[in-house]
Amino acid sequence: MNPLQYAVIGTGAVGGFYGALLHQAGQEVHFLLHRDYAWVHENGLILETKGQNLHFRVSAYQTISAMPQCDVVLVALKTTQNHLLPQLLPPLLKPDGVVVLLQNGLGMEEYVAQFLKTDRIIGGICFLCSHKVGPGHIRHLDQGRLTLGSLNPQNLWLQTRLLHIAEDLKNSGVPMVIAPDLILARWQKLLWNIPFNGLSVVLNADTQQMTQDPAIRSLIEDLMYEVLGLAKACGHAINPAEIEGLITASMVPYRTSMKLDYEASRPLELESMFAQPLNRGKQHGHTAPRTEMLYQQLQFLEAQYARSGSKALG
Amino acid sequence: MNPLQYAVIGTGAVGGFYGALLHQAGQEVHFLLHRDYAWVHENGLILETKGQNLHFRVSAYQTISAMPQCDVVLVALKTTQNHLLPQLLPPLLKPDGVVVLLQNGLGMEEYVAQFLKTDRIIGGICFLCSHKVGPGHIRHLDQGRLTLGSLNPQNLWLQTRLLHIAEDLKNSGVPMVIAPDLILARWQKLLWNIPFNGLSVVLNADTQQMTQDPAIRSLIEDLMYEVLGLAKACGHAINPAEIEGLITASMVPYRTSMKLDYEASRPLELESMFAQPLNRGKQHGHTAPRTEMLYQQLQFLEAQYARSGSKALG
Repeated sequence: MNPLQYAVIGTGAVGGFYGALLHQAGQEVHFLLHRDYAWVHENGLILETKGQNLHFRVSAYQTISAMPQCDVVLVALKTTQNHLLPQLLPPLLKPDGVVVLLQNGLGMEEYVAQFLKTDRIIGGICFLCSHKVGPGHIRHLDQGRLTLGSLNPQNLWLQTRLLHIAEDLKNSGVPMVIAPDLILARWQKLLWNIPFNGLSVVLNADTQQMTQDPAIRSLIEDLMYEVLGLAKACGHAINPAEIEGLITASMVPYRTSMKLDYEASRPLELESMFAQPLNRGKQHGHTAPRTEMLYQQLQFLEAQYARSGSKALG
Repeated sequence: MNPLQYAVIGTGAVGGFYGALLHQAGQEVHFLLHRDYAWVHENGLILETKGQNLHFRVSAYQTISAMPQCDVVLVALKTTQNHLLPQLLPPLLKPDGVVVLLQNGLGMEEYVAQFLKTDRIIGGICFLCSHKVGPGHIRHLDQGRLTLGSLNPQNLWLQTRLLHIAEDLKNSGVPMVIAPDLILARWQKLLWNIPFNGLSVVLNADTQQMTQDPAIRSLIEDLMYEVLGLAKACGHAINPAEIEGLITASMVPYRTSMKLDYEASRPLELESMFAQPLNRGKQHGHTAPRTEMLYQQLQFLEAQYARSGSKALG
C-alpha cells in the first residue's frame, strides 16, 4: 500500500494531538491553521504528553488552496464550525480521498453526505483528555483512544481504507477500536457527553465535583438512562452496565470541552450533542425530559453571550 | 371584639412589611428581632412603599421571655429556621392564641401541629415583592396580597379568628383573600415558586431574563405542568389556565427570594419548596422529572457553601 497523505483541519486539542502523533510516526501530515498559523509556521507544534515535551516542525497552511490534495482529511473542528465544511473539504480531497470526522454528537456524517459520497465518509470518536494551552501548544492529560466507523461498513473499499487509517494511527501510538456500528458508538459517547458536558456548564463544576455530590451523581445516572432510552428508541441498544463504569471513570477532576467552550464564550456544541439526539428520539415517539431541560438551560446560558455582549473567541 | 395583640417572629422583608402596616393602622404589634435588635430598638422600622418613606417606633424585643403573650403570632422566618419554632411559639401564645405561618412551600402547618393543636394554626401565603435593604429597613416594590387559610376550615372558632385577623390586615391596607383550601393555595403558590425560585438560582437570572428567553419560558411551562400534576395526584386540582397569567406577571425583572438567599450564602428553602412537594407526589405514585432535576441541581449548588467554606449569613 502506498503511504496515505493526511490533512488536519482544526489543529487544536484533538486535531493537533492525533496529527502530531502521525507526523512523529513518519506520516505526511499537512495542518490547516487559522489564528495560530503564524506561530506554528515559525515555531512548529508542541505536544506535552506522558511527561515529555515534544516539538515538531510541521507543514502549516493558512488556506486550503495552498495545500496538496490528500488521501485523508481529519476534521477536528467543533461541530459548530461544520458550516465551513462544504467549502473546505471537496478541494482538499483526492478523487478517492476520505474524510474522518473526529467530532462529538450526532448528525455530522449525514450533514457531510449532502456534499460528499457516503463511501468517502468515516466517523471518529475520541476518548481524549487534552487541551490547547497556547498557540500550537497542546497538553495531553489522559486517554487517547480513538474509535473509527462508517455509515457504510459493507462497502469493502471504504472499510479497507478505514483499516489502513486505523493501522497508521495504531503505529503512531493511538489505541484504536473499530466500531461495527458507528451510530451506536456515537450514542455510547453521548451517554457521557450529555450529562457531563451539559451539567458542567450549568453547575460550573468539574467531573469530580459532580460525581462526588450524591444528588448530581444520581442526576447523572438519570440522564444516562434517558440517553440509553433515546438510543434504544432509535434502534441502538446500549448495555446499562456501561453507566457505572463511565461514572467511576469520571471521579477525577476534569473540565469538560463544553465547559472550556463556555468559559471562552465560544459557541456550544448544542446542535450535535443535544438537539440531534432529542429530535431523533422524538421522531420515534420518545421523550427525555431531563435531557431536554438541560438543553433548555444550556440554550439560555449560551444566549447570554449575546445579552452580555461578549465576543466569541473561536 | 377585643383588639388582637400581634407578635412578629422574623422581622424581615415579609414580617417587617405586614407588621409595620398593622402597627401603622393602630394595632398592638411586638417584634422579635435578632441581628437587627439594637438598631430597631434605637431607630425603629423604616418601610419604603408607594413612593413614601415611612418610619415607625416599634416595640422591639431580643428574646421571647421579654415579650407579652399574644393573640396572634405572625411567623415570617424562612422555613429553614422552623426548627426554632418548638422553642419560640408555645411561650409566646396566649392559651387561645393562634400562629399564622407566612411561609412558602408545604409541610409547615403539619410540622407545627406536632407541638400546637391544629385549631391554633393558620397558614398565610404572601404575594409580595419586598426586600430588606438594611437593618430594620424594608423596601416594598410591588404586590402585597395575602391569602389566609387553615387545615381546619370547619372549626368555627378558628375560622372566626382567621376572619378577624384578615379584617385587621385589610384595615391596614393589605389586599386579603380567604382560601377555602389552604393546601390547594400552597400548591398554587408553588406553581410559581418551583420554576422561578429554582431556575433563578441555577441560571443566575431574574424573572424577566427567564421569561424573555424562549427555551426557558418553555421550561417554566413544563415545570408548571409538572407541579400541576403533582398537586392533582395529591388531590388538589389547579386550573391550567393559571399558568399563562403567572408567566405574564413575571415579565418584569425581579430577583426571587431563593436567589437572594443564594447570593447571601443562606440556606435555601429546598425542603418546603422541593422535597415536600416531590415526596407527596411520590407517595401518590407520581413523579416529576424536571422538578426533581431542579432540586438535585439546587442541592449541589447549596452544598457549595460548605465546599467553598462560605459562612451562612442568616
